[in-house]
Amino acid sequence: MYNLKIDYAEGAHPAILDKLLETNFIQQNGYGLDEYTLEAKYLLRQKLNTPTAEIHFVSGGTQANLLVISSLLRPYEAVISANTGHIYANETGAIEATGHKVIPIESKDGKLTANQIKQTVAGFQLRPHVVKPKMVYISNTTEYGTLYTESELQAIAAYCRAEGLILFMDGARLGHALTAENNDLSLARIAELVDVFYIGATKNGALFGEAIVFPTPHLAVDFDYNLKQKGALLAKGRVLGIQFLALFQDDLYFKLAKDANDMAMKLAQAFQAQGHAFLVEPASNQIFPILPVTLIERLQEKFDFYVWKPINADYAAVRLITSWTTDELMLEVFIAMLNE
Amino acid sequence: MYNLKIDYAEGAHPAILDKLLETNFIQQNGYGLDEYTLEAKYLLRQKLNTPTAEIHFVSGGTQANLLVISSLLRPYEAVISANTGHIYANETGAIEATGHKVIPIESKDGKLTANQIKQTVAGFQLRPHVVKPKMVYISNTTEYGTLYTESELQAIAAYCRAEGLILFMDGARLGHALTAENNDLSLARIAELVDVFYIGATKNGALFGEAIVFPTPHLAVDFDYNLKQKGALLAKGRVLGIQFLALFQDDLYFKLAKDANDMAMKLAQAFQAQGHAFLVEPASNQIFPILPVTLIERLQEKFDFYVWKPINADYAAVRLITSWTTDELMLEVFIAMLNE
Amino acid sequence: MYNLKIDYAEGAHPAILDKLLETNFIQQNGYGLDEYTLEAKYLLRQKLNTPTAEIHFVSGGTQANLLVISSLLRPYEAVISANTGHIYANETGAIEATGHKVIPIESKDGKLTANQIKQTVAGFQLRPHVVKPKMVYISNTTEYGTLYTESELQAIAAYCRAEGLILFMDGARLGHALTAENNDLSLARIAELVDVFYIGATKNGALFGEAIVFPTPHLAVDFDYNLKQKGALLAKGRVLGIQFLALFQDDLYFKLAKDANDMAMKLAQAFQAQGHAFLVEPASNQIFPILPVTLIERLQEKFDFYVWKPINADYAAVRLITSWTTDELMLEVFIAMLNE
Amino acid sequence: MYNLKIDYAEGAHPAILDKLLETNFIQQNGYGLDEYTLEAKYLLRQKLNTPTAEIHFVSGGTQANLLVISSLLRPYEAVISANTGHIYANETGAIEATGHKVIPIESKDGKLTANQIKQTVAGFQLRPHVVKPKMVYISNTTEYGTLYTESELQAIAAYCRAEGLILFMDGARLGHALTAENNDLSLARIAELVDVFYIGATKNGALFGEAIVFPTPHLAVDFDYNLKQKGALLAKGRVLGIQFLALFQDDLYFKLAKDANDMAMKLAQAFQAQGHAFLVEPASNQIFPILPVTLIERLQEKFDFYVWKPINADYAAVRLITSWTTDELMLEVFIAMLNE
Repeated sequence: MYNLKIDYAEGAHPAILDKLLETNFIQQNGYGLDEYTLEAKYLLRQKLNTPTAEIHFVSGGTQANLLVISSLLRPYEAVISANTGHIYANETGAIEATGHKVIPIESKDGKLTANQIKQTVAGFQLRPHVVKPKMVYISNTTEYGTLYTESELQAIAAYCRAEGLILFMDGARLGHALTAENNDLSLARIAELVDVFYIGATKNGALFGEAIVFPTPHLAVDFDYNLKQKGALLAKGRVLGIQFLALFQDDLYFKLAKDANDMAMKLAQAFQAQGHAFLVEPASNQIFPILPVTLIERLQEKFDFYVWKPINADYAAVRLITSWTTDELMLEVFIAMLNE
Repeated sequence: MYNLKIDYAEGAHPAILDKLLETNFIQQNGYGLDEYTLEAKYLLRQKLNTPTAEIHFVSGGTQANLLVISSLLRPYEAVISANTGHIYANETGAIEATGHKVIPIESKDGKLTANQIKQTVAGFQLRPHVVKPKMVYISNTTEYGTLYTESELQAIAAYCRAEGLILFMDGARLGHALTAENNDLSLARIAELVDVFYIGATKNGALFGEAIVFPTPHLAVDFDYNLKQKGALLAKGRVLGIQFLALFQDDLYFKLAKDANDMAMKLAQAFQAQGHAFLVEPASNQIFPILPVTLIERLQEKFDFYVWKPINADYAAVRLITSWTTDELMLEVFIAMLNE
Repeated sequence: MYNLKIDYAEGAHPAILDKLLETNFIQQNGYGLDEYTLEAKYLLRQKLNTPTAEIHFVSGGTQANLLVISSLLRPYEAVISANTGHIYANETGAIEATGHKVIPIESKDGKLTANQIKQTVAGFQLRPHVVKPKMVYISNTTEYGTLYTESELQAIAAYCRAEGLILFMDGARLGHALTAENNDLSLARIAELVDVFYIGATKNGALFGEAIVFPTPHLAVDFDYNLKQKGALLAKGRVLGIQFLALFQDDLYFKLAKDANDMAMKLAQAFQAQGHAFLVEPASNQIFPILPVTLIERLQEKFDFYVWKPINADYAAVRLITSWTTDELMLEVFIAMLNE
Repeated sequence: MYNLKIDYAEGAHPAILDKLLETNFIQQNGYGLDEYTLEAKYLLRQKLNTPTAEIHFVSGGTQANLLVISSLLRPYEAVISANTGHIYANETGAIEATGHKVIPIESKDGKLTANQIKQTVAGFQLRPHVVKPKMVYISNTTEYGTLYTESELQAIAAYCRAEGLILFMDGARLGHALTAENNDLSLARIAELVDVFYIGATKNGALFGEAIVFPTPHLAVDFDYNLKQKGALLAKGRVLGIQFLALFQDDLYFKLAKDANDMAMKLAQAFQAQGHAFLVEPASNQIFPILPVTLIERLQEKFDFYVWKPINADYAAVRLITSWTTDELMLEVFIAMLNE
């Protein structure tokens, strides 16, 4: 069975393992005060064009989400999310466990619009009997592989700034967003538009690792305390620094994400060529074709993937996901089975 | 400057890096359902002689502590700890952040006695105006490098069972405890005596990793939910499984810990030979000699270590810590400077 | 302006004030260990036909809700509620602040069905990436004044028992439910069907007060600790005991609720006579007629009430609420204005 | 048995009950927006000489403490308290349940000094591995009936301001402090020196009630949300407003507290006349004489009080507490038994 189910089925890019080996016996400070971490932060600040950005490396997306949200909200403040958002649907109440309500907005494609956010905020006027919406959480790419255009993001950012809302972007698959065909954003532009975001590496080359970025440092005051308190501060923080250093030297990070997207687009074109529809228009490394159940069963003999959602008795949407490790030859086998 | 300040200044034992390389491109399930993790758990259950033990791998000690404690206590229940205990003194209120009071007991050497615990519990009778002590947290080795004998641990365990208290052992340096000269405990015996404990690898060969062990599974019901909720579930859980697999094949884990202890004992003997006293009797890989300030300053020219506690105007206690990476030649340099 | 906006605009029933005066200088134990509290609990257990029920008096509905829910759920467990439910919509994230997600179910009339609950639970299978639904919260009467029939409640209770879900009824207006025209439940029958509920007095004769009832005591173990920890234990607990004693002697509680319902029904009939529709069918002391905006404006000159929801440019639904203090003469003035 | 054990054994001062009766049927807004509450706040601001103070009435001391502390601290911040402090010793971990560590300072008489606080703060330098001390909690009077002089309070306030620490005074028995013989503080002076405090009425004339005062409003921003979220906002908030209105008209509050202190001093003099020592020097309405066990047993035949602490086999310290309701005739009976 070949994996098209998750984009974290393998280990790390060899450049990372090489660097772990090469640096293994060099003594360093603990808790993220090692040279590699400092260097990786320096490198990222350059790429982001934000010389004073505050950057912290953590181990995973749920950890990043709960840290950022709990560090920035006061007890009665809440975060707005698409109902498909990872913090609302897939993190076992991690945000609520830190005391904060997640306000869901119904979304078909995983994205939010400035207007939806505005209408939602309008429903929270009966102070003090309701929570105070204070943060907007968006994902780029989303859980449906879709992405924000610059103008969409700008509209959300403008609304948030006007209303004093903190804009937070979950970038677990930010590389895939920034290398997608229809993308017109950049790391530096995102750093201008959002208040805090993270650059996900777990799903793009690393063993694990997300880089939380506060483009301006005022929201990051004392964030180090939160890291320690929530169990997110690795004694050997070097392991995170080394990985980001390897990924952002020569823009390996973007190359890997683009490879993953290309593989998904190759699949998408094969489906389109056969006239299959999609639950959501393909945009990055996860695609959701709607297929006959009989075809799904046949493909499942050789490939592992999620059946996402039944459409009717005969059809269902599936999710196919690719990564920098996806083997093009296996995709050709897949496409051959599809075309049979 | 040579490091005698922390026991996590380097990377991982080469056997771990080898295994990461060797398995890197083998596709596996995510979230700890990979083969390496399953194999590592199987291996540990054998070493522990507990076929039904529930085992979970996490990234660090603070994470392990907050997960175990918050998963087992009801909101009004509290945990008893030495005032030197990591959860009381060094984790930025991680336990309190999950809602629970940590009740401190004054300790000179990092250890607790059954009698101290009993006296402390007796002070919490004014129900419901006081918290309900429900768990006892001990460390082995302690933050002073001391260890529990079997009879001491048995006395604590017997009291806890009689009173319905959960006994939890922080084993961030459990390898060092179990390979110390005066140790008479084993992994299997600990599994019989305590309700939950963890086997620390971050400070003994791994890049990071602690294995939380529930010897009998009833206390572990639904623990997986807690792992995810607190951000402790790595997408590529294989990274943890691989490390424990490498460390417990051929008992490498114990060999590394013993090496660290031997290095510390070598240092301890050198201090004793020169007639220096200790803050706490040396027992494992951290020792606390009391030295003239002038000598401390001289040693600091070449070695990095903590000045732990001033004793008087002329003397202070320092902490010297060794690990499996400590270079014996550098210790000889140290001892030569000491003997000058 | 006469109040038809809230059912807590006045003080207490005179029987309560009399009893406060009469007992004022009799010395009693603090913290709910006074004679009046003990007597009130005894009296309630008789009315409930539950000799071993555990009963605790608290000051308000939000306090009761957060206490019950946080005391019964483990950290990763969640509570299901109608999206109109008080805990979801009107308590400033009080439940999330104790760490638990509230899972909303869309509801038109404030009620849930066994089938809706079943379908919702079915959506939480992706363990451990989702919360574990463990409790169902319903209100009787609901925030729309509707009530549960015995067969509806029985169906929910049967499902909850089969699935190990705790069934919790918010009874902030339980008196109004039990004295409504279409009611076929009783205090004793509710005590058989639900796991925990409360009998609201704040909105039915008391200065404040809700009686939390655990029909069987096993879920109430250590609940006293939670009361103190959450700041809900009054030093002069007698104030709560005295009020419940006054309200349940000679069934004053039910008489007051029925008076409130009768006043609302009088209003409802007047609207029906004029051919006005309702947002939700009138059932207890709050009704939601749909009126022309011009009529609303005219009525607002003399009466204070909520405009609940715009229906279109010309019509809106309003909420009119009555209580045991509502003056029938003022209702006649209202009806006269309506009929003009 | 006559009560000298608690100062909340009776109901309210008759002036309060009268006002409850007199206002009972006047319709008012809910949730503290009634006229009596507004008037009471206005009156208190005048007494405090703080025209812009933000004032909120709540039901009890634990509720006040957890609200103030949780609303002002960020997750990793902690509060310093005497180990005898109510929040450390007697509130079932209420503060920890909101996520914050309480740092204890050993105290003999319930008070803290600026110097003790300074030394304690100095122990929390190992950022980010320790909590950040951000608030100092003191009680006036303390749990031992002792009080702060202006110069002591000024020293603490000066240190706190210099270091950016919030100074919070628990005033559950503030009336007793301000009317004690050796007091040189006033409400207005306290409002100048501390950042937030409360004026306790539960133990001085009210059925229940504490007035939380933020002398300058900036720390109180959004406090109303916290009140609702923690279940502290009474629907009939008028009950609190009415009580404070009655207590602060004609300074009844101070008269009641002075009466309580006078009764305690009368007792204290009787002990002194007989040559009995005290655990802590008597200062307000609670005194702690050290008595022969045989005498204690004799007194306990007619009087109810706490045996506080054994001194040796033959002697123990007891606590005797008086209130505005204490009957002078009963004290004479007590003194007669003492002098026998």
